[in-house]
Amino acid sequence: MTLRQSDSILVAGGAGFIGSHLCRALLDQGHSVICIDNLLTSRRDNLYELEPHPHFTFIEADIVDPLPAALLAPEVKISRIYNMACAASPPLYQADPEHTMLTNVVGSDRLLRLAEMKGARFLLSSTSEVYGDPEQHPQREDYRGWVSCTGPRACYDEGKRAAEAMTFDFARLGRADVRVARIFNTYGPNMDPNDGRVVSNLICQALTGQDITIYGDGSQTRSFCHVSDMVAGLIALMESDMDGMLPVNLGNPEEYSVSELADQVVALIGTRAKVVHRPLPEDDPRRRRPDISFAREHLGWAPTVPLSQGLQQTCAWFLSELEAGRALHGNNDNCSIAAE
Amino acid sequence: MTLRQSDSILVAGGAGFIGSHLCRALLDQGHSVICIDNLLTSRRDNLYELEPHPHFTFIEADIVDPLPAALLAPEVKISRIYNMACAASPPLYQADPEHTMLTNVVGSDRLLRLAEMKGARFLLSSTSEVYGDPEQHPQREDYRGWVSCTGPRACYDEGKRAAEAMTFDFARLGRADVRVARIFNTYGPNMDPNDGRVVSNLICQALTGQDITIYGDGSQTRSFCHVSDMVAGLIALMESDMDGMLPVNLGNPEEYSVSELADQVVALIGTRAKVVHRPLPEDDPRRRRPDISFAREHLGWAPTVPLSQGLQQTCAWFLSELEAGRALHGNNDNCSIAAE
Repeated sequence: MTLRQSDSILVAGGAGFIGSHLCRALLDQGHSVICIDNLLTSRRDNLYELEPHPHFTFIEADIVDPLPAALLAPEVKISRIYNMACAASPPLYQADPEHTMLTNVVGSDRLLRLAEMKGARFLLSSTSEVYGDPEQHPQREDYRGWVSCTGPRACYDEGKRAAEAMTFDFARLGRADVRVARIFNTYGPNMDPNDGRVVSNLICQALTGQDITIYGDGSQTRSFCHVSDMVAGLIALMESDMDGMLPVNLGNPEEYSVSELADQVVALIGTRAKVVHRPLPEDDPRRRRPDISFAREHLGWAPTVPLSQGLQQTCAWFLSELEAGRALHGNNDNCSIAAE
Repeated sequence: MTLRQSDSILVAGGAGFIGSHLCRALLDQGHSVICIDNLLTSRRDNLYELEPHPHFTFIEADIVDPLPAALLAPEVKISRIYNMACAASPPLYQADPEHTMLTNVVGSDRLLRLAEMKGARFLLSSTSEVYGDPEQHPQREDYRGWVSCTGPRACYDEGKRAAEAMTFDFARLGRADVRVARIFNTYGPNMDPNDGRVVSNLICQALTGQDITIYGDGSQTRSFCHVSDMVAGLIALMESDMDGMLPVNLGNPEEYSVSELADQVVALIGTRAKVVHRPLPEDDPRRRRPDISFAREHLGWAPTVPLSQGLQQTCAWFLSELEAGRALHGNNDNCSIAAE
């Protein structure tokens, strides 16, 4: 099932942070892209640069609801479906946990049925959160995780685990050709400044002269993957001929503590803001780092953008947003340190 | 929210093995019972003894679909909702994994919304399967489990974990008063002879003179709770004033190997059938035993029926089924050793 340049690709959640970069990359490759997004937690601004493109179609709809007739019509050919749809930062996905769960389970089910109907290949954007607060470092794909199914993060973590289960069942029954990416922390332009992720929080605080907030003592570590690397990995996975029955970690295996990250941001921006420590949110993972051996070997993929370079570009983007007069403030009150 | 004798209680999955005993016990307490069941994996026979009861109402419907108007009507008062609905043995829940997942997630969501609408207390029948193939023995409720979210059991295991997540979210947001029971292996009359559970398989094989099938070497252990004990535990949990934010193990902590169980069955029935060993199914847990300290302390509950007595009664029931001419044969070809 080789992808032709003329084929249409559906990106659910295409107005989101990673989704919007993915749409751009697929358009740049010459494909027609249909983006479906409910615009609940994605940034409307992310669409401005996509909508003028002649091969880009935007449908405002929620994948929890029955899919729009425009997608189901037999004359609409779709050969790839990327499911990037779901609020992905704790304050946002916890705001309506029922909807988060249904987005992952019912939404994925609807898109998998669409893939079955269209004969399209389906890629689920899963998450490092399926590993919970891991006891194994770095995390390999066969690690089963240490996830609480009763806590406040469970709507997302267990929702993604359930979506993986459903995706692999469609493959096991021969109903769809599937790929599952487990996405680790990603950063770059188009991040929502207000969604409480650690990179955007720190940059926004530094740029606006606020206190730099670190949750806990800052020794918890994260790996940060630039969004251009992530998009390249997602496309490589989708187009690979690998056995789709295995989930694949995508992320940057370089590990930084949150304190180190804060130091880099402060140095880049040159702020004199002081660092304040606040309590770690419940269930926050202490450490998360991908083992990407599988992706290296089977996709020939590895991240190439160094953190210093990626942070510089991201700071520049946030600064341009600030200068354009768009709201820009770290989400101090509700946020936790998100894992992605 | 004390339960009055006149209150109506909804039992989803009330035609199933445990559900039908629960309906009977609630009717015996003087309550009106509404049973909703799709009759997909439950035994129609289980309803024969319930349907003549003047306070029993049966609605044939699937909780994956929008709930029947008969339940939603404002004049229908419901004060308790037991969600016992889901295929529970591997060959049955794996036959349509998408439906299994949706039963747990969408079905639970619909019933939780009903509980919110009616001001009813909601009990989710979860499962020891949320512990997967556990590394901790016996399993306490705070053990996070060792579950594969990509394997053939995931539709059930992850479906139940997702249902737990959603249930606790309804409680966290004050939308419903909830209880979550993690049900371990249960046996007794009304089991489906053909669903591949270890107790029914062994008894049916012994009664019909077939080979006694043991998967693996038989050293894997299970704990077996008689259904009358289980029903008493479920009602005690539903009516307790405990903090509903904690899941509660219900099961019998006495541990037997599958070989020991087979020996007891063979001795009770006096068959000369020979034991044959077959390969263990994928993902089959090696060991499962509940820590029921929490239920003992907070519900004052513990099982009282010894295995020898329960097995004797269960064998007698299976024999009466056989004599009544109802189909009775161990499911040799498709079954695995189910955990419940």
